[in-house]
Amino acid sequence: MNDQERTRKIEKLARLIRYYILVITTKAGSGHPTSSLSAVELMTCLLFGDIFRFAVDRPEYPSNDRLIFSKGHASPLFYALWAAAGKLSEEDLLTFRKFGSPLEGHPTVSFPYTEAATGSLGQGLAIGVGMALNAKYLDVLPYRTYVLLGDSEMAEGSQWEAIQMAAHYKLDNLIGIIDVNRLGQRGETMEGWDLPAYEKRVSSFGWKTLVFDGHSVTDILAAYRQVLGVRDQPVMLIGKTIKGKGVSFIENKNGWHGKTLNQEECVRALGELGEIDKSLRGEISRPEQKMPKATSPSGPVTQIDYPADRPVATRKAYGNALVRIYPQFPAIVGLDGEVGNSTYAEIFKEAYPDRFFEMYIAEQNMAGTAMGLSRRGKIPFVSTFAAFWTRAFDQIRMARYSAANIKFVGSHAGVSIGEDGPSQMGLEDIALFRTILNGVVLYPSDAVSTEKLVEEAARHEGIVYIRTTRKETPILYGPEERFPIGGCKVLRKSEKDVATVVAAGLTLHEALAAYDILSHEGIFLRVIDLYSIKPLDEEALREAAKATGAIVTVEDHYAAGGIGEAVCSALAAEAVPVFSLCVGEMPKSGKPQELLDYEGISRTAIVKTVKEYTAIAQKRGKPA
Amino acid sequence: MNDQERTRKIEKLARLIRYYILVITTKAGSGHPTSSLSAVELMTCLLFGDIFRFAVDRPEYPSNDRLIFSKGHASPLFYALWAAAGKLSEEDLLTFRKFGSPLEGHPTVSFPYTEAATGSLGQGLAIGVGMALNAKYLDVLPYRTYVLLGDSEMAEGSQWEAIQMAAHYKLDNLIGIIDVNRLGQRGETMEGWDLPAYEKRVSSFGWKTLVFDGHSVTDILAAYRQVLGVRDQPVMLIGKTIKGKGVSFIENKNGWHGKTLNQEECVRALGELGEIDKSLRGEISRPEQKMPKATSPSGPVTQIDYPADRPVATRKAYGNALVRIYPQFPAIVGLDGEVGNSTYAEIFKEAYPDRFFEMYIAEQNMAGTAMGLSRRGKIPFVSTFAAFWTRAFDQIRMARYSAANIKFVGSHAGVSIGEDGPSQMGLEDIALFRTILNGVVLYPSDAVSTEKLVEEAARHEGIVYIRTTRKETPILYGPEERFPIGGCKVLRKSEKDVATVVAAGLTLHEALAAYDILSHEGIFLRVIDLYSIKPLDEEALREAAKATGAIVTVEDHYAAGGIGEAVCSALAAEAVPVFSLCVGEMPKSGKPQELLDYEGISRTAIVKTVKEYTAIAQKRGKPA
Repeated sequence: MNDQERTRKIEKLARLIRYYILVITTKAGSGHPTSSLSAVELMTCLLFGDIFRFAVDRPEYPSNDRLIFSKGHASPLFYALWAAAGKLSEEDLLTFRKFGSPLEGHPTVSFPYTEAATGSLGQGLAIGVGMALNAKYLDVLPYRTYVLLGDSEMAEGSQWEAIQMAAHYKLDNLIGIIDVNRLGQRGETMEGWDLPAYEKRVSSFGWKTLVFDGHSVTDILAAYRQVLGVRDQPVMLIGKTIKGKGVSFIENKNGWHGKTLNQEECVRALGELGEIDKSLRGEISRPEQKMPKATSPSGPVTQIDYPADRPVATRKAYGNALVRIYPQFPAIVGLDGEVGNSTYAEIFKEAYPDRFFEMYIAEQNMAGTAMGLSRRGKIPFVSTFAAFWTRAFDQIRMARYSAANIKFVGSHAGVSIGEDGPSQMGLEDIALFRTILNGVVLYPSDAVSTEKLVEEAARHEGIVYIRTTRKETPILYGPEERFPIGGCKVLRKSEKDVATVVAAGLTLHEALAAYDILSHEGIFLRVIDLYSIKPLDEEALREAAKATGAIVTVEDHYAAGGIGEAVCSALAAEAVPVFSLCVGEMPKSGKPQELLDYEGISRTAIVKTVKEYTAIAQKRGKPA
Repeated sequence: MNDQERTRKIEKLARLIRYYILVITTKAGSGHPTSSLSAVELMTCLLFGDIFRFAVDRPEYPSNDRLIFSKGHASPLFYALWAAAGKLSEEDLLTFRKFGSPLEGHPTVSFPYTEAATGSLGQGLAIGVGMALNAKYLDVLPYRTYVLLGDSEMAEGSQWEAIQMAAHYKLDNLIGIIDVNRLGQRGETMEGWDLPAYEKRVSSFGWKTLVFDGHSVTDILAAYRQVLGVRDQPVMLIGKTIKGKGVSFIENKNGWHGKTLNQEECVRALGELGEIDKSLRGEISRPEQKMPKATSPSGPVTQIDYPADRPVATRKAYGNALVRIYPQFPAIVGLDGEVGNSTYAEIFKEAYPDRFFEMYIAEQNMAGTAMGLSRRGKIPFVSTFAAFWTRAFDQIRMARYSAANIKFVGSHAGVSIGEDGPSQMGLEDIALFRTILNGVVLYPSDAVSTEKLVEEAARHEGIVYIRTTRKETPILYGPEERFPIGGCKVLRKSEKDVATVVAAGLTLHEALAAYDILSHEGIFLRVIDLYSIKPLDEEALREAAKATGAIVTVEDHYAAGGIGEAVCSALAAEAVPVFSLCVGEMPKSGKPQELLDYEGISRTAIVKTVKEYTAIAQKRGKPA
């Protein structure tokens, strides 16, 4: 096909794609036709202009180019492209936004050509960074990652995190395409059609930039071809476009975001498009036949070996564990947010520098990058302080809708970090990660269980959160102990137990200390290590509740969404009182033990709670 | 004082400040001396070089300049500056990081000169945007806002959100100061000492930039003086500095972040400083005598007036409410993240354009800006989709440590938004906001209660979250009904109630529908509108639990941290079963009612749950 023929075919395909966009959004009665129409040429040229390389019948093929719609609301365009490629029929398309259809309002992975679920803006470029890092440094594959960006979403800081990181890692296989259609949801963007503003900013971070008319097939193709020659720099294509392009009465008009044409308007609009060839199909070029570089972990396989009498911080055991299990799980990749010497991700980095990426202080991009790596078959272990995962929670929430396989690790949990004060204390992380549908939340109390749980996390397909502790804690378990996800450990148990204390992490050691104090007075407690906060070992909890008659939960975390509430709701049907000890006073700087006492989550508080309860229970004549 | 004298005095003060930094961090045994030492000249020149204007005995004085330590770990420098200004004794300083001291590890508002708690990096500039917006557009005061920034934290996207927004609003009263000391926590920053990289990037967003030697008093003073003449642009001062400056054996050395000198090292270091004049005090120039511009809301005072038979979306009532109450609460400022036509913040914007700031799609900066406005006496009402507050949760969490008075509003809660799909569904927001210590979470079910609760929120000092719904809901209440924070409404009640259904928002209407269905069959329910999810009306819940014997919670939210868990933990001591109906299946696109059924949170699910429970209870011989 010569260039003229190609241009004519793309123009025809663009008309077909516009037809699909209009028809399916009008049928659905909701969706974003105008935001789709502006990017039609940008995307049609990419897919059908001999730029994009993709085995259309094998979306998972490793050397396929990747296309992420960061502006997920342009889903009508996304689906229309795959219809034009012959992978969806018009009938399929007409299920758009209907219950049970894989063609959801914003792309999710229920549609097999979706690389990652989008719709919360400003997330696609970071995911692209993950995919591009994978191609350049891990799988060593020739694929390129293209990310379609809206101009409105360039206001999100996460974009600039991704921009700086892509330049830092010289990702010449990452191409952003900004669809500068001037209009956001409720009016003009900050920059409007000031394309040089975008150019100046993006290039100031070290990207190659190209500005052009985003509706001129010739200009767009020329820009894409130029991209192919760029080395050591990511490239941003900045296209000037018109929102609603192709339909005169909605073009460049405010008030048409997320608004569909009614039936009559749709007929008028289709009339403007000109002749549509519904039998036309675009061809996508085939990818290079190349498979990922094999990884053969060469490090020594080590055993778990912690002297029983020497306390070790679980955060340190995390680093050790990663190194130990990597030979078994060569898909592991380590990421850390510039605190690797605190989270101990640095232990892994030092052992396997090629499998580690420093993500600097940019947690949103780190979570997005992990998402991209996960979708390319890696098992990212991603660490920062527990407190700072609050920074990336939108990305974490969205990862669930992409069926991500990511292991998040949060160190420095709770007030027990001490003197650094509240800004550094992870006190909401359990609540956050417990909201992740089907997610797993693990909270080890000693080095051995940390090692085992890191291994369980690697084996588990899905999102796992591991909470680690700053302070050193005594070794509780032998190296043969098993820690299945969803289990718990009963560490103290007798026939005379008056209550069950449920704890994890540092507070488990407080519970054990409370046990020692009370047992000297002849009061016995059951003590449970709740290392798996989600899923919860409900059976074991119910059993302990029935056997001992009361539950005391103790956690270095706020009440809401924490261990206490998890246990309470698991036991909602049982007539057993649950006392929740948790962080409830304004946290501040101080020594760890001072703060545990201040918050009422120390051994002293446990002893007091148990004594008060047993006194009342005895008064009431209950067995105590 | 001539320039030479001033320079010499600043140099002497800098030595004293270095002395304080070293002594207090060594005494505390933790903290960040090296990150403090690098910025000594930058800050000493600002405070004591006739640049900063501040009534030292009146930190709240409205036309004081403002200084925010975004790199909060440089707190030793921050406190040392105020000691040098005569506001702290050396004895005070030596309480640094001790339990109960206002001089916490990272600044919090327990120290009266702290403008906002920092320590989670990348937050200070956005707070500065809020303070600068206030000075320029609201209070119309001549104060300037200075923000000390670390070079490492420039990797945070939130910085670039603030940078673009400050330029957009032409905040010539906002001055950032980047302390480019090259080293982060675990090694070199992405840019190291490449100062032109910072200059190029920041200036590409429209800022005036100045680059200089960050240890040269002459150069620094010259830069600050140049700032005073800049118009319509924010200014970024970019100083090349040395981490650990002044102590030869830690200068520019990796491995000294967050590490203190031991006693012997401290003595050596002090020896290097030269003569210290402990009696020396710096003088801060006095501010202009000017008071904030008075606001006299001129709009008409309207009454709540919703026809009983016409459904209204609570999100719309939110917009109406703001307009209605503004004359009573003239400190209100509206902010919205480019979705004002969805959250209906636009109703307020249209009525009071001078009291509204468009914050575009940059939620982190929006939360930070609200923080800054709050600290300057405003009552920011800040809105976006409930789902997108996950984006700013680190800022929200930190706001608590600044004693913020902010009203967050999240629209489009739950699966009931329908076709747009999971990316747009707020399903974790209750959990998130419930973790905020002493925070308030409100969830109105009709337009009238929304109006009342917006008013309660404005009156309440502190962080309040208001959850609104996309769909229109019937009017439930008359205009005279009261909705105190911490209360609830019993909407259906009889002697024969077999269970209590607790719901809020859209699911309350499902509960009322379930009541209608069941009452036709002679089965009666108590129905509670839990409009105040935090604080919870525990007494009313306990009473209902006792009276009816069972509780069913129904919410358009995930289980973790939601209404079900809140109610379960409130009733942990009661022997009453709690059944929690909530979102538990992977959400998807569909019609609202389809999705309520799919998730088991519709009237059908409530009816089924109640029938199953009563059948079992009857079998067991319980009264049902």
